[in-house]
Amino acid sequence: MPPSAIVNHRIVLHSRPVGAPTVDNFRLEERGIPLPEPGQVLLRTLYLSLDPYMRSRMSDEASYTAPVAVDEVMVGGTVSCVEASQHPDYQPGEHVLGYSGWQGYALSDGHDLTKLDTGIGMTHYTLALGVLGMPGLTAYRGLLDIGQPQAGETVVVAAASEAVGAVAGQIAKLKDCRVIGIAGGSDPCRFVVEELGFAACIDRYNADFAGQLAAVCPKGIDIYFENIGGAVFDAVLPLLNVHARIPLCGLTAHYNDSGLPQGPDRLGLLARTLLAKRIRMQGFTSFDDDGQHYEEFRGRMNTWVQEDKIKFREHIVDGLENAPQAFVELLAGHRYGGLLIRVGHEKEAVDEAAKADALSARS
Amino acid sequence: MPPSAIVNHRIVLHSRPVGAPTVDNFRLEERGIPLPEPGQVLLRTLYLSLDPYMRSRMSDEASYTAPVAVDEVMVGGTVSCVEASQHPDYQPGEHVLGYSGWQGYALSDGHDLTKLDTGIGMTHYTLALGVLGMPGLTAYRGLLDIGQPQAGETVVVAAASEAVGAVAGQIAKLKDCRVIGIAGGSDPCRFVVEELGFAACIDRYNADFAGQLAAVCPKGIDIYFENIGGAVFDAVLPLLNVHARIPLCGLTAHYNDSGLPQGPDRLGLLARTLLAKRIRMQGFTSFDDDGQHYEEFRGRMNTWVQEDKIKFREHIVDGLENAPQAFVELLAGHRYGGLLIRVGHEKEAVDEAAKADALSARS
Repeated sequence: MPPSAIVNHRIVLHSRPVGAPTVDNFRLEERGIPLPEPGQVLLRTLYLSLDPYMRSRMSDEASYTAPVAVDEVMVGGTVSCVEASQHPDYQPGEHVLGYSGWQGYALSDGHDLTKLDTGIGMTHYTLALGVLGMPGLTAYRGLLDIGQPQAGETVVVAAASEAVGAVAGQIAKLKDCRVIGIAGGSDPCRFVVEELGFAACIDRYNADFAGQLAAVCPKGIDIYFENIGGAVFDAVLPLLNVHARIPLCGLTAHYNDSGLPQGPDRLGLLARTLLAKRIRMQGFTSFDDDGQHYEEFRGRMNTWVQEDKIKFREHIVDGLENAPQAFVELLAGHRYGGLLIRVGHEKEAVDEAAKADALSARS
Repeated sequence: MPPSAIVNHRIVLHSRPVGAPTVDNFRLEERGIPLPEPGQVLLRTLYLSLDPYMRSRMSDEASYTAPVAVDEVMVGGTVSCVEASQHPDYQPGEHVLGYSGWQGYALSDGHDLTKLDTGIGMTHYTLALGVLGMPGLTAYRGLLDIGQPQAGETVVVAAASEAVGAVAGQIAKLKDCRVIGIAGGSDPCRFVVEELGFAACIDRYNADFAGQLAAVCPKGIDIYFENIGGAVFDAVLPLLNVHARIPLCGLTAHYNDSGLPQGPDRLGLLARTLLAKRIRMQGFTSFDDDGQHYEEFRGRMNTWVQEDKIKFREHIVDGLENAPQAFVELLAGHRYGGLLIRVGHEKEAVDEAAKADALSARS
């Protein structure tokens, strides 16, 4: 029996980061595997999704959700297999979307689980952590409900190579907008243009970022899909058109802030710009969505994915112990696509491998 | 014949203000009265509305409308009487809503005029410059379309004693919200509570303004109807609830700014608050409204006014020459209700007065 079957490996918040997180802010622990009580299921994690929002949970600052306590398991969306069940609705072997966090096993009473073996036909389960899950829903709601894109408009998408931005930009393309991406580094920028088909993508680490962005937006910006902030927003602000919309679902450039930056104070400047140009700026998260919108989203997005109108790249890193390093790299902005940690393997795959071993031993 | 019948008195922008405007930024001029050419009407101004937005037009800074040029007539909404007409649709003696600006006479080709003698029954023409006009429409659209008030919510209205704020707060009351006003001085605050029926009104010039505002908002703020900015917004920001809405139609505290205030830079703080609490902040003006919404607004608001559900106070100052001083006082925030300049008198009134004079001379 492999070690993961008898020990629960979990990664806890070891210390709160000051500035950018490092791997030292995390700690790998071993625990016993809990047994499900009546009404509970024991889940074995197959995939953990790493997402920028997790950075804000590491700080002791009020945000849209409560912070993770020090010494507690890091939170996160997961695809799991039901390992044992004392819950009438779940049978061993079923696959579920849940929130087990950064660990190999977890108990659930089922309230936060979505079955993945039924319903719409997913090509593979991990899409439930990406284009058909939280990142996809964030992109869908922000771009359509708040952005309200019109054909011919210029849409600029921050963090365009990452899970949320990549989907938001592709939806804008489906709405016949001219879509410009912003990404961190030349490889992600190439991916955004060549694989996702954006009209252009500007490297935010380029010294002339603001000038390059202005050059590819000769008609200004009608929708700015914001999830970075900082110097990227500063470059966008003067380009915004009258009646622009700013769906705001993340501010990764600020997650590492400790204290406010030096002046002058531009809070009033932002308000005056929103007034002078009658701009809508709205924070949102996919957590606020009710179930009804989720079903509409999942059906529509699934169709787009099946028809190859929306592409979704996954980057899979093997082993829970590698999650801290992968997360630190994610925040640096060099990633593209959704970032997944393969925490455990499918039982079928293990059995197939065992069978292959047995066959080869016989030959 | 009184002097106003042979000379066009007009007030032009003499110089751009640095900081708060003074009467020296304006200049009273005399001009000949123009004659209408074919397709034109000559309008004689009866009432001119003074509104805070005019401050932004005095600056050479891009805002939602072009600035007034130095030596040009100040802009403004007016109720006028058609004095002479070469336009088939207008007859002498008719009353119209228009945009003659700060002057006694003006020509129009009719495109910017609304007839006031027909249509819904106004109790008096000046309402077309107030609750049934631009200020009323601003309050109506901002509160209902952007604010989307729900029964039981806490609504805070800036400049609550003035034309727009007074109407916005009363609409919120009709939607069964708990409405808190912010005004400048004890008299305006008393007016807001005693005459308009708000639950409370806080004097923004009080040293403990922020503490007093927090004390009357124990459940936080769900809608903040913004038209001041500055220190008022600073006090509101920490009180905003999750999913709060901020309709933004003016920033009078900033109209006199020259340059940005000292740091720290709180632009990112505002963005983080919008994200953490999923807040919608949206600039808007009534100028953006299409005709369809205007008709809906006018019918509904007229009913509210007729049924005394919405009260509207007018403050009338006699004489165009007094407009600069009245405008300077308006910006100081001590006014309440709509501020109108009586530029000319109704012909009927003049005739009645002449008849009374003649009668008294005979007696």
